[in-house]
Amino acid sequence: MDNIAELDLIFGALAHPARRAILARLAQGAATVNELAAPFNMSLPAISKHIRVLENAALITRGRDAQFRPCALNGEPIAAVAQWADQYRHIWDARFDRMDQMIITMKDSTND
Amino acid sequence: MDNIAELDLIFGALAHPARRAILARLAQGAATVNELAAPFNMSLPAISKHIRVLENAALITRGRDAQFRPCALNGEPIAAVAQWADQYRHIWDARFDRMDQMIITMKDSTND
Repeated sequence: MDNIAELDLIFGALAHPARRAILARLAQGAATVNELAAPFNMSLPAISKHIRVLENAALITRGRDAQFRPCALNGEPIAAVAQWADQYRHIWDARFDRMDQMIITMKDSTND
Repeated sequence: MDNIAELDLIFGALAHPARRAILARLAQGAATVNELAAPFNMSLPAISKHIRVLENAALITRGRDAQFRPCALNGEPIAAVAQWADQYRHIWDARFDRMDQMIITMKDSTND
């Protein structure tokens, strides 16, 4: 799988609020599917499907314990997302710089 | 539209290599749909569909020129992506720190 296909899977996996919420929960520590299902008020098949999508994008890894297979967050695909976004930093930074400049100009004219 | 729905649209729009390629092209400057279609060897309906998805996620804006309506990159949704990823920075940083430590340990043992 090349980087392009990886980013497709990662962004696709992140495009659902439940999957982002699962990642936020796992940032606090590993959890079993049952532990994940409870706070989200989701059926086990529904949560299992989301977990498979996240696992397929390498955003989570599963433990080897045959009965519980706890889920853990894997930060590397998120680092890839940050790296992808970072190449456009000059574009949003430039916009924020212009906004800062506008605020300074507005303050200056208020002080006149 | 709240932040959660926005992130759904943004991540969904980014989950296709052609759409990420369009953004990379627009980072060089605004372009019409025709100008975008040429290098990607894509039909106008296909590229128009991708542009609508990007526009719907506010990743691009369209000019007012009735005939050409040039597309321009909007950095703010990408800043939102960077901000989302950044909340997990401690997780991937910790992993890279561990890798650095492993490399130092390996070097030390080679020097013995």
